[in-house]
Amino acid sequence: MVYSVIMAGGIGSRFWPRSREASPKQFLRVVGEETLLQQTLQRVSPLIPADRAYVITHERYADLTHRQLPGLESQQIMREPISRNTACCITYAAIRLLATDPEAVMVVLPADHLIEHENRFLEVLAKAIEAARVPDTLVTIGIKPTHPATGYGYIQFDASDDDTAHTVRTFAEKPDISTAERFLDSGDFLWNSGIFVWRADAILANIRHHLPRMWEAFKAAAPHMNTPAEGAAIRKAYHRSPRISIDYGVMERAENVRVVPGSFGWSDIGDWHAVYSLSRKNRHGNVLSGHVIVQDSSRCLVSGAERLIAVVGLNDIAIIDTEDALLVCHMDSTQQVKNVVDYLHAQQFQQYM
Amino acid sequence: MVYSVIMAGGIGSRFWPRSREASPKQFLRVVGEETLLQQTLQRVSPLIPADRAYVITHERYADLTHRQLPGLESQQIMREPISRNTACCITYAAIRLLATDPEAVMVVLPADHLIEHENRFLEVLAKAIEAARVPDTLVTIGIKPTHPATGYGYIQFDASDDDTAHTVRTFAEKPDISTAERFLDSGDFLWNSGIFVWRADAILANIRHHLPRMWEAFKAAAPHMNTPAEGAAIRKAYHRSPRISIDYGVMERAENVRVVPGSFGWSDIGDWHAVYSLSRKNRHGNVLSGHVIVQDSSRCLVSGAERLIAVVGLNDIAIIDTEDALLVCHMDSTQQVKNVVDYLHAQQFQQYM
Repeated sequence: MVYSVIMAGGIGSRFWPRSREASPKQFLRVVGEETLLQQTLQRVSPLIPADRAYVITHERYADLTHRQLPGLESQQIMREPISRNTACCITYAAIRLLATDPEAVMVVLPADHLIEHENRFLEVLAKAIEAARVPDTLVTIGIKPTHPATGYGYIQFDASDDDTAHTVRTFAEKPDISTAERFLDSGDFLWNSGIFVWRADAILANIRHHLPRMWEAFKAAAPHMNTPAEGAAIRKAYHRSPRISIDYGVMERAENVRVVPGSFGWSDIGDWHAVYSLSRKNRHGNVLSGHVIVQDSSRCLVSGAERLIAVVGLNDIAIIDTEDALLVCHMDSTQQVKNVVDYLHAQQFQQYM
Repeated sequence: MVYSVIMAGGIGSRFWPRSREASPKQFLRVVGEETLLQQTLQRVSPLIPADRAYVITHERYADLTHRQLPGLESQQIMREPISRNTACCITYAAIRLLATDPEAVMVVLPADHLIEHENRFLEVLAKAIEAARVPDTLVTIGIKPTHPATGYGYIQFDASDDDTAHTVRTFAEKPDISTAERFLDSGDFLWNSGIFVWRADAILANIRHHLPRMWEAFKAAAPHMNTPAEGAAIRKAYHRSPRISIDYGVMERAENVRVVPGSFGWSDIGDWHAVYSLSRKNRHGNVLSGHVIVQDSSRCLVSGAERLIAVVGLNDIAIIDTEDALLVCHMDSTQQVKNVVDYLHAQQFQQYM
């Protein structure tokens, strides 16, 4: 059977001050009426019904997840005791699925991405699932780049084969702009979407091979899946596991990696500028929510809370208001918002994080 | 005797959202540790002691005035029942002073101006008081212009006479920029400071002549000054008076108007840009108060309240935060803040005014 595994444990620091440790990006209505997490579950439902959907998140977000996805059973929300990276999260999901379904195919989905053309996405996903049924194959979905983005990792594929799932030649880190332009021109580079499809046994075999310490940590937990001892066993496994991403820990090292290219209006909506770009604008190019008065301003994103906000004579400015913290940021500097959060951490201003 | 009459009834709409109907500009610490009202009283004290100081303001601000100037007696705070313009305010003050001192000389001072060089100001004021002792003479203080300001009215004086108090040739409304440049080049134009000095009987004679309806309205109130009937009599007078400024109603029409030029770092701090210009800046040219985190920003004015404010990648932006309303405004557009307040009035958003 095919299962979705929605990774919803991130803290979304570039969405400060709306995104906080208490309520990160995936739990917010960033674009549209539903939260990103709700959209993620909804989007795959034609291929994977809700009773085969799993959300994996930090235990502090389990209640929030429950409230946003009331249709899921408690056991469908997998609780991480501490924040590790994606390899740990995926290992837990794999051993959990294998406990009841040795043939399980996992569709791993970040909970905080946006996809504009859902039908086109589902077509690509169906192809990826098909490709992942081949034993010992790791499949990822790659996005056909529309511009030389420097904020994404890239995947180079072998353009000589005819398959819908191409052989991956290499994974590349976030490039500088000239490298990104070269990637775009070459025609054989795709954006790394972070969406993966594989058999649970295939990814576990690769983890055993490439991340033996992680395998050791989780091996002992496997027999306790779906028992009252699961929580304690997983806690022990997480504390013994290294912090490493699945990309770095497995994908860049594995042999049989395939990529299915797609083009479906994907965005990881990594910062406020991306939210602005993806939102419906008024005739002055402004995106406004809350109680806002605008004079002589254009291309602004204003996300209000309770208070009245007056915007006068501004261009290309993001204003994000919350009850206890306010961000005013130029659209060209929205990536730097992460630095504000780093500063808050360094200063231990816990109340604003 | 010489008395000060401090006009403190304005609502300061260009200082929204800090300035509200409940607490206008003159009651705020705009620059420095004291409020503008406190600074105004303090500034003239070497020439006019506090027991000869009068504040005239809307009755809703009487308690606030008392709290800020606890040294004043209750009768030194004159209560206007409704907001009229400056002619009405000055007429009331004149009849009140004449009730106890037929020789009274009034120094009329707006409560919301800033003066950098107080000693130089006092020298000029002393000359103006001297000039105003001549019967039937209206004296105003004119500021030597430092740049072609379009936000001030101008006074043209007769440069041919040698007096310290020059004959006024004409009053000019706020000019456009090319006219302002001509005024500056001519050498015989001064900024209209709104500071006036005259005998109370002289200004009343002129009001009788030029504003007969106002004279009629107040004539009946005069015998009730300093009695329990004063409040009711003044209320009646105000309701019967036209709304007109002393400049337009009297100064532009009167015969014997003299101006004493001065140069003492005067500003009417008419908007947030002026506050920025007059404030001490850090090495990035920012003026910051409250709990503010700044990244990669310069020439900004951030006036915080309770909340944390993060400023990222901004230049030349004013951010004024209050509990229930926020202003974000480009420094070139600070005059337009008045339009926001006009809009709030039109929409009857009373709570934000």
